Amino acid sequence: MSKEVTIDWCPDKSSKTALVHQIVQYITKKVYRGDWLIGDRLPTQRALAVAFDVNRSTISTAISELTISGVLETTVGKGTYVANNTWSLLVSDKTPNWKDYIEKGFHQANLPTIQAINKYEFDDDIIRLSTGEVSPELMPQDLFSEIFQQMSSEPIAFNYLEPLGLEALRTELCHYLKKHDIHITEKEILIVSGSLQALQLVALALLGKHSKVFVEEYSYVKSLKVFEFSGINMKTIATDNDGPLPWIIDTSTLREGTSILYTIPTFHNPTGRVMSHERRVELLKWCQKNHLPIIEDDAYRELYFDVRPPKPIKSMDTSGNVLYLGSFSKSLAPGIRIGWIVGPESVIERLGDIKMQTDYGASSVSQWMMTYMLRSGLYEEHLIQLRTRLKERCHQVLSYLDTYFSNIATWHVPKGGFYIWLKLNRAYHTDTLFENALKNKVLINPGFIYTSKNSSHIRISYSYASMADMEKGLQILSKIIREL
Amino acid sequence: MSKEVTIDWCPDKSSKTALVHQIVQYITKKVYRGDWLIGDRLPTQRALAVAFDVNRSTISTAISELTISGVLETTVGKGTYVANNTWSLLVSDKTPNWKDYIEKGFHQANLPTIQAINKYEFDDDIIRLSTGEVSPELMPQDLFSEIFQQMSSEPIAFNYLEPLGLEALRTELCHYLKKHDIHITEKEILIVSGSLQALQLVALALLGKHSKVFVEEYSYVKSLKVFEFSGINMKTIATDNDGPLPWIIDTSTLREGTSILYTIPTFHNPTGRVMSHERRVELLKWCQKNHLPIIEDDAYRELYFDVRPPKPIKSMDTSGNVLYLGSFSKSLAPGIRIGWIVGPESVIERLGDIKMQTDYGASSVSQWMMTYMLRSGLYEEHLIQLRTRLKERCHQVLSYLDTYFSNIATWHVPKGGFYIWLKLNRAYHTDTLFENALKNKVLINPGFIYTSKNSSHIRISYSYASMADMEKGLQILSKIIREL
Repeated sequence: MSKEVTIDWCPDKSSKTALVHQIVQYITKKVYRGDWLIGDRLPTQRALAVAFDVNRSTISTAISELTISGVLETTVGKGTYVANNTWSLLVSDKTPNWKDYIEKGFHQANLPTIQAINKYEFDDDIIRLSTGEVSPELMPQDLFSEIFQQMSSEPIAFNYLEPLGLEALRTELCHYLKKHDIHITEKEILIVSGSLQALQLVALALLGKHSKVFVEEYSYVKSLKVFEFSGINMKTIATDNDGPLPWIIDTSTLREGTSILYTIPTFHNPTGRVMSHERRVELLKWCQKNHLPIIEDDAYRELYFDVRPPKPIKSMDTSGNVLYLGSFSKSLAPGIRIGWIVGPESVIERLGDIKMQTDYGASSVSQWMMTYMLRSGLYEEHLIQLRTRLKERCHQVLSYLDTYFSNIATWHVPKGGFYIWLKLNRAYHTDTLFENALKNKVLINPGFIYTSKNSSHIRISYSYASMADMEKGLQILSKIIREL
Repeated sequence: MSKEVTIDWCPDKSSKTALVHQIVQYITKKVYRGDWLIGDRLPTQRALAVAFDVNRSTISTAISELTISGVLETTVGKGTYVANNTWSLLVSDKTPNWKDYIEKGFHQANLPTIQAINKYEFDDDIIRLSTGEVSPELMPQDLFSEIFQQMSSEPIAFNYLEPLGLEALRTELCHYLKKHDIHITEKEILIVSGSLQALQLVALALLGKHSKVFVEEYSYVKSLKVFEFSGINMKTIATDNDGPLPWIIDTSTLREGTSILYTIPTFHNPTGRVMSHERRVELLKWCQKNHLPIIEDDAYRELYFDVRPPKPIKSMDTSGNVLYLGSFSKSLAPGIRIGWIVGPESVIERLGDIKMQTDYGASSVSQWMMTYMLRSGLYEEHLIQLRTRLKERCHQVLSYLDTYFSNIATWHVPKGGFYIWLKLNRAYHTDTLFENALKNKVLINPGFIYTSKNSSHIRISYSYASMADMEKGLQILSKIIREL
């Protein structure tokens, strides 16, 4: 995959060294040190002239020199690239062949679209219509301030922690989970650096060759590579409005390898759907009968608007069938990077051992912060505020959708969470849509990243952008769709 | 591997339910929910009577009942176990076979000795002679307090961060690294949750089938499973007092798969050794010539007593050969879980992408905390204090060694870091020593966890235990060795 390099330097015009020579040196060094790899694409000469703040002719001379010396190669109509033979010609006496290392590594790279999203989310000019996190303005700065004040007033030893995480935090979480009818002890819960890490640990610790992970047609984990290790298979299960229909699974496929089912029953990502109580009961019963463990990802539970969602599947689990994930990333602030996984002691111990081998535990600073937040009741206080403000945002965004999307898409009215799942009336390539939107400084999560099939969906999130940006972005997006 | 279960519950003596029945229910539930696994060992009946606070006869009746119903099985002379057929007999209608999941997972479990160390480090009665972290009393509580005060006084948005980590922290680290003659930009550094995670990322992102990791005879990474993925080979390189001698490597072994060399040149873990400047130059030259990248783990650099150690290998690297690891875990507090890896942009970008897939970045709370620490100069202030106090501790521990070990072991006098590498005069099984010490409430890191061969070494750390504990522990250890 060819990547365009970025220029982060300008020649020094006051230097005695000629500009051409400075540029040749800069590019040679970038290649020589392995910063740029074989096959990486350079910007156009016009763009290079802007980036280096020099004349086109200076660029043209520099490129010629570098082409002659074999560092770059130019193909008419295609552009200029780091030359294929650079490594052998120029740097073979010293530089490792990093391209080889990067390509042969075990773990797959993120989807290019996800990489682009991760990157453009830090571009200040971009309107983020889909970002799945709370806006800074929804974060309780006054409460954070209170907590840091407390942390400042008493000595805390930031040593390595127990394999399962800070005991005081696990105790607080056991109390907290009782409110959701989940009754556990401190040995049945592992603190993780966010739910994604819990999935990574499950993949490393409990899955192996021939393992199957059953997921809904549209699923958060399909946008990740976390289960795409050698030999693990992702299998799609049929789904209706109430959630997955596992009884359609051919149970003979469960015989080989260890399998697991992943679901977000409450305010599902990306569809926003809530699984009914009856479906939760049926799903658990079927999975128990077929010895298929469930990963219940419950990151959005607290974000209901009016009515509490049905009880977690885990609250009905008497046979250790459910691994239950929770997190403060959606309900408080993702940067704290604290989540948890609940399961049978034997499984939690195994996951804790792998966690120790992965990063020696989550940040104790974050763990102490959350212990104080829970213990003081400030977290619950924050949730009450957040629910009201999310509901307001949601209503506002629904009114924008009525204005700009009423005859080009359909959607459900959310009862909580972050997402509205727009279904476009006509089948578009949502990757083209993604690119066109990006050109217009609008960032969306297109439906295809959540599925292996085509998709004419867009995930809209009312949690992040300002309402002014939301309206502007939706208006632009609507225009792009109409013009396609 | 059979594990002894722990009892964390007592029957309710005021309940109308008979004690025997309560115990039967408790054990059945533990097995039924997957907390205890097939083959797990129960404590002796005597120990169970103590744990449940009941008569031996009550235990005996409960065990009989559970044996008859097939939950437990008792082998004379061996003890009582969770029965092999439990899963099929009792719980086959519901519970997943978690034992199977745990055994078939990709990632290996920690060494049993390391698991024991991780566990016993949280036992308050234990003297920790080898713990590789600073004692809480060496942590700058007043500076932490100042930092939290600052964090409390200005709003911080704890959102997800850029793939490479908080830009403000990367900028501070670029300044900081200049002091060590490492000149980089923010795109050449990735923030990680401690150095161990950096190794995990290297293993996942850059290594694959047939990869080789070259390590010294005694090496920190041999105590880990981080490089024991399918197909990666760990190869030992010959070492003298100055460090590794890579030129003895048969270069034909470098042809297949991607390879890397791992070393801690400064205050090496576990030996405490410092690689000379000349060896650093030679090592880099040889590795450049053979295109073998180096991981330079420099976690202990700041902990010198009198003389600054030789410059990092990375400071002499003009060809992108060295991946440089640093961390605040040893020099400030491990619980902050912040480290970094420096390398060519292309490699750092790949590692950052995998990090995003692993845990969406390190804690922003910790990252902001360290940004403030560096920016305010408080970190440098702390290091001056810490060096003096570590030196004092080291001298004290050396005097204890003179008293208790002078005729049973030899050692070098450290110039910094945490460790004294005791070489016992006679060849003992250090695993027996480990167990005997543990029985006497003394925890050591025995030499064999750092090598694939036999070892008559013990890693002593003067950074953690109080000096009173240190003396007491060394006295006990000396007695045990003399009696072996």
